Parts: sequence; C-alpha cells; structure tokens
Amino acid sequence: MRHLVSALFRDGTAATGSPLERRLRRISALERKEEARHFLDQFHDASSAGRAGRQARWAEVRRSLSRRGWYEHTPDELAFGARLAWRNTGRCIGRLYWESLDVVDCRHLTEPSQINSRLISHLGEAQADGRVRSTMSVFRPVQGRDLPCWIESPQLVQYACHPGLDGVLLGDRQNVEATRIAQSMGWRPADKPGPFDLLPLFIRDRTDRRHMFALPEGAVREIDICHPDSGGFDALSLRWYAVPLVTNMILTIGGIDYPCAPFNGFYMGTEIASRNFGDAKRYDLVPQVARALGHDINEPGPPLWRDIALTELNRAVLHSFRAAGVTMVDHHSASDQFMTFHQREQAAGRRVPGDWRWLLPPQAGSASEIFHLRMRNFHPVPNFYRDRGGDGLRLMPWYGDRYNTRVQMWQDRITRRWKLWKRMPW
Amino acid sequence: MRHLVSALFRDGTAATGSPLERRLRRISALERKEEARHFLDQFHDASSAGRAGRQARWAEVRRSLSRRGWYEHTPDELAFGARLAWRNTGRCIGRLYWESLDVVDCRHLTEPSQINSRLISHLGEAQADGRVRSTMSVFRPVQGRDLPCWIESPQLVQYACHPGLDGVLLGDRQNVEATRIAQSMGWRPADKPGPFDLLPLFIRDRTDRRHMFALPEGAVREIDICHPDSGGFDALSLRWYAVPLVTNMILTIGGIDYPCAPFNGFYMGTEIASRNFGDAKRYDLVPQVARALGHDINEPGPPLWRDIALTELNRAVLHSFRAAGVTMVDHHSASDQFMTFHQREQAAGRRVPGDWRWLLPPQAGSASEIFHLRMRNFHPVPNFYRDRGGDGLRLMPWYGDRYNTRVQMWQDRITRRWKLWKRMPW
Repeated sequence: MRHLVSALFRDGTAATGSPLERRLRRISALERKEEARHFLDQFHDASSAGRAGRQARWAEVRRSLSRRGWYEHTPDELAFGARLAWRNTGRCIGRLYWESLDVVDCRHLTEPSQINSRLISHLGEAQADGRVRSTMSVFRPVQGRDLPCWIESPQLVQYACHPGLDGVLLGDRQNVEATRIAQSMGWRPADKPGPFDLLPLFIRDRTDRRHMFALPEGAVREIDICHPDSGGFDALSLRWYAVPLVTNMILTIGGIDYPCAPFNGFYMGTEIASRNFGDAKRYDLVPQVARALGHDINEPGPPLWRDIALTELNRAVLHSFRAAGVTMVDHHSASDQFMTFHQREQAAGRRVPGDWRWLLPPQAGSASEIFHLRMRNFHPVPNFYRDRGGDGLRLMPWYGDRYNTRVQMWQDRITRRWKLWKRMPW
Repeated sequence: MRHLVSALFRDGTAATGSPLERRLRRISALERKEEARHFLDQFHDASSAGRAGRQARWAEVRRSLSRRGWYEHTPDELAFGARLAWRNTGRCIGRLYWESLDVVDCRHLTEPSQINSRLISHLGEAQADGRVRSTMSVFRPVQGRDLPCWIESPQLVQYACHPGLDGVLLGDRQNVEATRIAQSMGWRPADKPGPFDLLPLFIRDRTDRRHMFALPEGAVREIDICHPDSGGFDALSLRWYAVPLVTNMILTIGGIDYPCAPFNGFYMGTEIASRNFGDAKRYDLVPQVARALGHDINEPGPPLWRDIALTELNRAVLHSFRAAGVTMVDHHSASDQFMTFHQREQAAGRRVPGDWRWLLPPQAGSASEIFHLRMRNFHPVPNFYRDRGGDGLRLMPWYGDRYNTRVQMWQDRITRRWKLWKRMPW
C-alpha cells in the first residue's frame, strides 16, 4: 500500500541508482509532510511550545518542503529526534537511558576525511575513562536529490578475517568480504595476519567513490579477555574492543533521512561472549573454550559443555571489562533495566515497540523477564533502519492506541491523507 | 473476515454456552466442507487412492455434511489426520518423528470413567519400559450440536500447589486454582502436603458436570532428580514424572473437532529443568539450586549463578532420566533433529510452519541452529488448538506456496467459496 501510494505521488528525490539511494526509503511528498508534522507535534508537546511558535515553525517547514522537498532541523529538534529514534527502536534492550543520549551536531562536516577524524575523536571521547556514554554524531542528511557521504562499514571497529591456505578462517568470519576489499585497496595487517587485526573504515563520498581510512595506532581501546579462575582459557588470548560504534544505520526524523549518524552505546556481555565469540558464523569458539576449560567434547551424552562454555565465556568477558573499568552490562541486569523502561513508558501512556527475538538475551533466555513479556513489534518514526526493502518498509508514524483493529488504522490514514491532499496547492 | 463469514453462514452447531463450546472453532458449513475436501485430498494423495475411490468417499462425506453437519473419519483417515496435525504444529520442536505417531481409536468410549481408565492404561503403555513412544488416544469428536466428554486438566499428571499460612506456595505454582478445586471436591494429599503431590484428573461429561478421578497408587512413574556430582543438590529431593501426557488440546481434522484426543511425547530436558523448575511462576528453584551448589547469590557483580544453576539443573535432569532408562532428549539434539525435519520437509516440497518463540530452547539459545533460522508461523489444518479466540482463529487450509501476497490468497479463497457455493443444493 505504502509503495502504491509512493508510486502515485513519487516526489522524485534521490533518483540515482547508487547503493545509498537503493537503501533509502521512498516516501511520497505527502508522507514526508505527514511525518514532519507528526514529529514537530511531538517535539513541541515535549518542549511545551506556545501556539504561535508551533504555527510559525510548521509554516516554515511546510514552505521548505513544498519548495525544496526537505527542511532543516534545528539543533534541538535534531537532538530530540535522535533520542526518540532510540526510544522507538524495537530491537534495543538498553533503551532505559534514551533521554541521556548525547547528540553532536556535525552537519557542517561533509568530506570523508572530516567524517573520519570526527569518528576517531568520537570513539576517543566515548572510551576515554571507561565510563561509556551513549553518544551520536549526526552528519549531513539527504537533501532532496542531494545525497551526502555515508559510511559503508557497519561498525567503526571491526576485526579482519584471513582465509588460510587450508581453508581455515582466521578472525571474524562475517568480515571475509570486507577484508578482501580492504586488501584489494592495499591494506595489510601490521604484523603477520592474526585473529584480531583491525579493519580499516570505508566511507563513500557524494560521487559514491570508496575511501579507505586505517584506524590510527592506539585509537582503539581493546581489552584482553581473561577468565577469573582458568589459566587454560587465558591461553586462547582473546580480546575485544571496548566500545561498539555503529555506523551504518540510517536515522530518520520527521521525514528527513540521516544516512550518516554513527552512534555508540556500551556492550552487553552476551553480545561479545555468546554471539561474537560463540556463533558458528563468527569466531565459533565454544568447542575451543570447552576444551580449554578441561571438558571432553567428544564424550557421549548430552553436549552440555556448550552451555558451560558459553556461561564461562560470559563470565570471562564480564570479568575482563570490569577489571579494565569499562562500562558493560550483564544480560540479567539489562533485562531488568528493560523491564523498568517498559513500566516507565507504560506509565507515561506510551506503548513500547519490542522485537522479542532481538530483546531476548541469547543466553539463559527463560531466566529473563523478557521471555515472559508480551510485546508488539511496530515501527514508529523517528527511528533507525538499514534499508527500504527490509525494516525501512514498515516505518510509519504511530498515533498511539487509538486503533483496536487494522481496519480502523487504515480508515484513519486514508482520512488523514485526504485532509493533507485537500490542503495541497493545486 | 473469518468471523464475518461465520456470522453470515453460521451452521448453528453446538450453540450452548458450555466452556467447551466457547473453546470450539466456529466455522461455517462452507468452511467445514472446504477443510474436509482439502483433508481428503491430502489423505488420498498420500495413500495413492484411485479416482473412483476418491470420488465415492467425497460423495459420501459431502452427503453426510449436508445432512448432519458432520461426518465420520475412517480409522486410517483418523490416524493420518492426527499425524498431519502433529506435523503442522508450529510450536513443536520434536516433529521429526511425526510419521511414527501411534493412534489408538477410542471413539467407542464415551463415559468419563471409561476415558479415565483408558488414560491410565495409555500412560502405563507409554512409560512401560522407559522407551517412550508417542501415542494418541482419540475419543469421540463433536458431532453437530452434540458435544462429547472432554478433559479439563491440561495434563494427566500434574503436581498440586499448597498455599501455606505464611503465604509461601508449596508445589507447582501454576496449579493453585486446580488444587483449590480438587480440595473443594474432597481431594486430600495422601500424606502431609508436599511439593510433589499428584493432582487428580478432571473430566467433564456431556452435561458439563465435572468428574474427579484420583490417579491410582503406582500408576505414575516418577524419577528422582539427582545431580551426578553434587550431594547438596540431591538434598533438594526433586522429582518429576517420566511421561508428559497432554490432555486439553483440541485436535481438528478435515473440519471435525476432537476435543478429547490426549497424546504423549517424551520430554526435552529444558522443559523440566529450565521451565518447570526454573520459571519464577513455577517452582522457582534457581536461587535454591545455586545455593545448594555452593554459590553465593548475594555477592555483588553479574548474577551468573543463574546461568550456572540452570545448566546444572539441566545436567541433573538429563542424568537422572538417563540413569532411569527413560527417553529424554537434550536441547542441542532436539534442535539438530528439528533442523533435519526442516530439511526433509523442504526436500518434500513443503514449507514448515514454525513459531520461533516456542521452538527456540530456553537455554543457550544462540547455540541452537534454530536461533539463526528464518521461519514463518502459519497455521494449516489438520492441527491442534486451545481455543477459538486464540490459536483456533488462525487455522485454515494451506495450499502451499501459491500465494506471494495476502491479496492473492484472499482472491483464491473467494473463488473457492464461490465454487463451493454454486455446488450447494439450493
């Protein structure tokens, strides 16, 4: 339906066939207007703006949308929108702190090299004293047909993967392709290839050319993963970086897309231990860890060494981050924090969008209250998305609990469209 | 939509307000006919029946449906339908063995006392030598307005819950209400109240009167749960019954509902260890187990004792069942078996309905291949359901992968309805 509407009222923004363009949502001028209006209402409600101020701002935005197909957010709107986008992300378990997100307005930085140096200082600030603060740097948005630079790498810090001659993959297996591209552009690991070589960052400029930036020596804080009791575990010499800085999500606020809005949070232990180290398509370390801890993985019977190794991996990761003084949350506390967030939101009269599959910790699932929580995965804007074919398709304003049925919602949407349509200057 | 259709073409079956009637699906005569036709097609395809035989059977069924609103399955149809219902249950991880389900035709047993004695012998056969075989006893179906006896208890074997004077609940907390009812009908635990007192069985007769049957002494095989290494654990004196016998699911085959079709499978370790013992709303044993294993649950820091206690609970349950020689599958093997089932079904050209939330083991989630498997939760008939408001509402024939969109499906359904409508004898 949304596509049909888009096809009818396509406003012709960003019609090139670049990879970024293919990821951006296609929304009609009407839908953009609807989202802008909805966002400004939310912003003004939150800041208790007076009627005159609201009307003046909406007139200005509407004029800009009609003339140019886009408008510019004020710094306050941007910060508020980014926080709302976090609050609306159904897949994030750490949303309790949504109001404390630091938003750095970097819209004046437009060149890949500028973006790269801002990212390095963003990372430096985030990991400085170990008390990781959630921060977002927002660069230029899409302005009509005008696409900005964007970051191709999914995270600022990533480990390379080297295929060996014997077919064994050394490193983070999800990065085989990125490593190949980096090598074809002349990148080489500092020493001989290892499992934790830092990949360079890829930034695409406005003509879609790929720029590669190696991370400067010492820019990334890494933590050696040691087990509190087991020396065998330490012999695996694992390590991981302190701060996850996500770089490839598109932030959408009030109809305006920010494809370059990298943000950092802090880690939950299971992300590193159960998924990055544990998954068969990542480091696949569970059998190695079990052996290092002295378990016989070939003995007949139920392979509970998997459960034990995963728990010990988690314990080692949590212990090492704590010893290094770097913020990290364990999955039980994160789950409790989410429940607090859920209660607060409901107390404020808002429903919480939640994707159960992503929220449930990958470890000791039924021990988490989230396991037993009923939730609905809707996709309100402002929000983040990866591409228009997947999660981007579902985004739309959420008008609260007015609808009991889907029919009612469509009825309302059609009425709203009709009202907007009548107001259009034809 | 389905409700709308039902309201228009209601065939007036079972119009009393009894609890069973409120649980039964309301489907129109047309829908019943469609499901019957779809089921007979599947049955005849599987048994490679000739054209004449098919037509004769369909004519007979159609006549019976027109005259009486129901028809009778042959024993072969019944067995085939029950197996299909298992294969179609999106929430079951153990469907690899769907073809080996034993179906016992008990449609001639109609009185509560007969049902009770059949159930006792069903349980006896299932748990006899420890090699648990999946079996189903099928009693009389709904025949038009005529409702059969049905079983109110969700499982044949269940443990009571005694609220203490101090507010502490002793036993399986999900059975507080059932225990209260049993006590008001005169049931008392054999000795003084304990955490593992067997609840009596509740059967409702055709006039909806509740009959209570205590389980005979020695009818239920129970297994003491011991830990292979820890004596502290054994001091908790846990036990659980050997065979789960589910009694309150409604089996629906070709438009005919069997509200009394109890079946047994065998246990997966996590069902007892992580859920029945671990859940806060069941036995809530995780803190006790952690203490029994010598962990300090009050020490500051991440509460990984939860993960450890859950793993050790699983180990104890798996160890005890194995020592007793009773069939039980661990969650890793069950997950592998499901992947085999999934591949076999896809090789046979069938899509697998799957409810990720139910299939994912509640323990070491991301270590299971199911965690990374994309699946769709559709609800084909034959199937099982609990009540018409919940899972019963979604059931409908599945015509394979012909539909790419919901619109196409509705188009097809309307065409089919129209064809059936034209054939109706008015």
